Amino acid sequence: MKNKKSVKVIPLGGLEQIGMNITAFEYEDSIIVVDCGLAFPEEEMLGVDLVIPDITYLKENADKVKGLVITHGHEDHIGAIPFALKEINMPIYATKLTMGLIENKLKEHNLLKTTRRKVIKHGQSINLGCFRIEFIKTNHSISDAAALAIYTPVGIIVHTGDFKIDYTPVFGDAIDLGRFAELGKKGVLALMCDSTNVMRKGYTPSEKTVGRTLRHLFEEYNDKRIIVATFASNVDRVQQIINCAHRKGKKVVIEGRSMVTTISTAAELGYIKIPDNTLIDIEEMRNYPDDKIVLITTGSQGETMAALSRMAASVHRKVSIKPGDVIIFSSHPIPGNEKAVSKVMNELAKMGASVIFQDTHVSGHACQEEIKLIYTLTKPKFSIPVHGEYRHLKAHRDLAISMGIPKENVIVMQSGDVLELNEESAEVTGQVLAQGIMVDGLGVGDVGNIVLRDRQHLSQNGIFTVVVTLDRYNGMVLAGPDIVSRGFVYVRENEELIEEAKEVVERTLDRCHQKKITDWNKLKNEIRDDLGSFIWKKMKRNPMILPIIVEV
Amino acid sequence: MKNKKSVKVIPLGGLEQIGMNITAFEYEDSIIVVDCGLAFPEEEMLGVDLVIPDITYLKENADKVKGLVITHGHEDHIGAIPFALKEINMPIYATKLTMGLIENKLKEHNLLKTTRRKVIKHGQSINLGCFRIEFIKTNHSISDAAALAIYTPVGIIVHTGDFKIDYTPVFGDAIDLGRFAELGKKGVLALMCDSTNVMRKGYTPSEKTVGRTLRHLFEEYNDKRIIVATFASNVDRVQQIINCAHRKGKKVVIEGRSMVTTISTAAELGYIKIPDNTLIDIEEMRNYPDDKIVLITTGSQGETMAALSRMAASVHRKVSIKPGDVIIFSSHPIPGNEKAVSKVMNELAKMGASVIFQDTHVSGHACQEEIKLIYTLTKPKFSIPVHGEYRHLKAHRDLAISMGIPKENVIVMQSGDVLELNEESAEVTGQVLAQGIMVDGLGVGDVGNIVLRDRQHLSQNGIFTVVVTLDRYNGMVLAGPDIVSRGFVYVRENEELIEEAKEVVERTLDRCHQKKITDWNKLKNEIRDDLGSFIWKKMKRNPMILPIIVEV
Repeated sequence: MKNKKSVKVIPLGGLEQIGMNITAFEYEDSIIVVDCGLAFPEEEMLGVDLVIPDITYLKENADKVKGLVITHGHEDHIGAIPFALKEINMPIYATKLTMGLIENKLKEHNLLKTTRRKVIKHGQSINLGCFRIEFIKTNHSISDAAALAIYTPVGIIVHTGDFKIDYTPVFGDAIDLGRFAELGKKGVLALMCDSTNVMRKGYTPSEKTVGRTLRHLFEEYNDKRIIVATFASNVDRVQQIINCAHRKGKKVVIEGRSMVTTISTAAELGYIKIPDNTLIDIEEMRNYPDDKIVLITTGSQGETMAALSRMAASVHRKVSIKPGDVIIFSSHPIPGNEKAVSKVMNELAKMGASVIFQDTHVSGHACQEEIKLIYTLTKPKFSIPVHGEYRHLKAHRDLAISMGIPKENVIVMQSGDVLELNEESAEVTGQVLAQGIMVDGLGVGDVGNIVLRDRQHLSQNGIFTVVVTLDRYNGMVLAGPDIVSRGFVYVRENEELIEEAKEVVERTLDRCHQKKITDWNKLKNEIRDDLGSFIWKKMKRNPMILPIIVEV
Repeated sequence: MKNKKSVKVIPLGGLEQIGMNITAFEYEDSIIVVDCGLAFPEEEMLGVDLVIPDITYLKENADKVKGLVITHGHEDHIGAIPFALKEINMPIYATKLTMGLIENKLKEHNLLKTTRRKVIKHGQSINLGCFRIEFIKTNHSISDAAALAIYTPVGIIVHTGDFKIDYTPVFGDAIDLGRFAELGKKGVLALMCDSTNVMRKGYTPSEKTVGRTLRHLFEEYNDKRIIVATFASNVDRVQQIINCAHRKGKKVVIEGRSMVTTISTAAELGYIKIPDNTLIDIEEMRNYPDDKIVLITTGSQGETMAALSRMAASVHRKVSIKPGDVIIFSSHPIPGNEKAVSKVMNELAKMGASVIFQDTHVSGHACQEEIKLIYTLTKPKFSIPVHGEYRHLKAHRDLAISMGIPKENVIVMQSGDVLELNEESAEVTGQVLAQGIMVDGLGVGDVGNIVLRDRQHLSQNGIFTVVVTLDRYNGMVLAGPDIVSRGFVYVRENEELIEEAKEVVERTLDRCHQKKITDWNKLKNEIRDDLGSFIWKKMKRNPMILPIIVEV
């Protein structure tokens, strides 16, 4: 078994933390990379803008990397591409809309000219080193999603990407179940299947069911201004909202930078059909009565800077919410955003708007019965659950076992695991670097654990800076101690505390002077300890204490 | 209408923000206060421990305050009592278990001896000034909850407290629907009804349904160690878990300070029945095989310091999670805690435990059909929705209107509103102070917006402290600029940046010296501006910059 040649499957991200999907497949001198996404920072990653995968392993094997294959155009699958391309120049393969969205990013990062790209159609295959990759039509909450059949020297690996089964999609065809069945007949070595909704029973409803609800709502609130918040990338949703508006003779305004960009790209490439004279500029809104206006906007997740949140906080420059407005959240809160979304809803309700959020969204991911169907069609020998938190992967494992996959053939991986896979076995044999790299402003990877711990400390307790100036010859205090605090208490109301704190430091300085302590690190530690315990005793608080000693 | 005498209804908290329930009822020289709860800090209240209501209005009218009437023993209804008692000494009226839990708090704050208290039974009434208050049995997720019928000179106000309708409660009687009906016959002027679940259709299931699920789980996992996480205050839930354990001949360990306290109080007062030889100390666990142990613990909300979270992070001193452990979350995440709960679940799953959270909890609040029943029984003239975010209150308004209450008789209030209510009208006629007061350590109210803004700034970007020592006579630089950063970048890897930053400040100092700027605030501003724009250009980041000038 051990002397069999194997394909290595290496998820470099995406399994520890939602987002940041990227997986390497390696055989001899060929590596292909599937997806290259970013993650949004976890709550404890204070001040971090985004998180990208660590591609050290790819850099070390750059000569082997044949190309980057993308399943669909969501940020958690394409967002880190510009960062990766700055490290390794590799050609990109994707379907048309996906490539359009990638090209927007490459333009921003000035990488368009230097990056080879090829648009692939569903059903088409490409050869990269010793791999052949076939793109298979699927459905998802963004158009043009693809599953991949990866033909390797040891067998076929089917990677579903993010998918659902939509028998009645808004745009284009239903998922190519027939092709999954054919692959099953040929023999699938391993299935790497989306786990997001594996804990939900039944089926995810068709995107068209949302259209039906929206039509009813547009009927009921025909005499109102309607504002619909949804995901910037959900082109089919926007299409359905536009259809509802058009049917009622209303004009449509699209607001929010990311949505404007995505919809323009989708319109250029023919993925959305906007009837003539329907779309108007936000400036033109004033020329129409309220009941002729539909505003489609970003901000459905309560993101502070998004258009809807700015409207809710009355700081949007061009739109003021008024009593009577009907605001439809065509979205569910992504885990972690629940409170922010409620807050925006409450603010909108206080302004007199009606807020609607029931039956106005469906998921883009397959539920249990859909996942079971894919297992039944592809009949894989091995199952490698992907795309989910650890508990989802574990629940997926149980589902795979219930579908007849032997226990030992279901491999729950973690990011960085190296799986060696061949006709007979699948075994995690090693680990590579796979921790997320934090991006803060222009800094990539310069914010680490110490910085985050400091930010955490500062955020909870603020800082006390203590400056003392000493004579460099005799160690006498020439000035200070001066104390400046930030984020601790409002100083004007606590002058007394600051005075007492100075006295504490003066006593420390006296003591150290008598003991002839001249090691400044020691002196700083003494100040930190004495002042810290004074503040703790006095107020049960624990600010960061930063002693600075100046020699003159 | 205007010259009619009115009762004033003044919610001093609880309507802006979940938690912090407290309402004053005033007529001539009598004020009664219903509940006195705390709130947990919102996300943006960095470092704040808890939030308590502003009772300035009560202090200003302290001579009128006749007493504090409590509906049930949850923190959002009793948590601020010690803080309030330090400002106003008022007698407390509550049912037995509620009073037991309040007394635990009074002991901690050394207020037991100085506070008059009276235990009231369901069905009993008390007279406070010109008010009579009757306690009515209800059901909730803590035993001994009461609704209040407040007999005022202008009519009866029914306040439900937090409630659900449980026809088959675990302990004690079902809600006294008959009494609600009798009050309806007498004539109810206003209904103040719980809005928490007003957006949910149907009925909240009985607490006993959870017992059934737990029994099945204990059957299925009889050979495993079972750990159940639930709310510390849910005595009936703990009773059901203990019953399951006892039935299977298992020993029970209770872990987590707040749960130990609550369960001891409940046991002393007869609200929970623990069979002999069932409860063991955590130290005794080692004497029993795993399949004889049930651990009931706090931490069902993913709270960092709670027992279960410490087990998940492998830092609990006495319990180590092992493969095979079965961990039941008998709770739903409270909005805002979803991610923290998922994180704990993932950590537990990675340790090899089975994590179960489906059908293992029911809400303590009434859904739409239960609320409608209360309206049908009490037939109030006015409806004042309470206990909910603004959008819940608004949805409650729609429900009340659908039950036949005239639109103008439903009053959606905000905290601090003063409602004047009499037989004929209900009108908000003024406002009093009602913003939450933040408590941080021992400081009550000393953390304000400036401090929070600073903490926010520090948490996102860290701090750059710049110290310059100047000659007090000629303004020449004697030492520095010295730069110390915290929470910005890891300095050892960015020495170059710090050097460049020093040069920026040196140039600023030179320029200011040449321009003969001697106003130090001006000098500090110049340093702040120059250094700020240098860092922004270089790194697109925006740390707090704290220039400190020392004169020698």
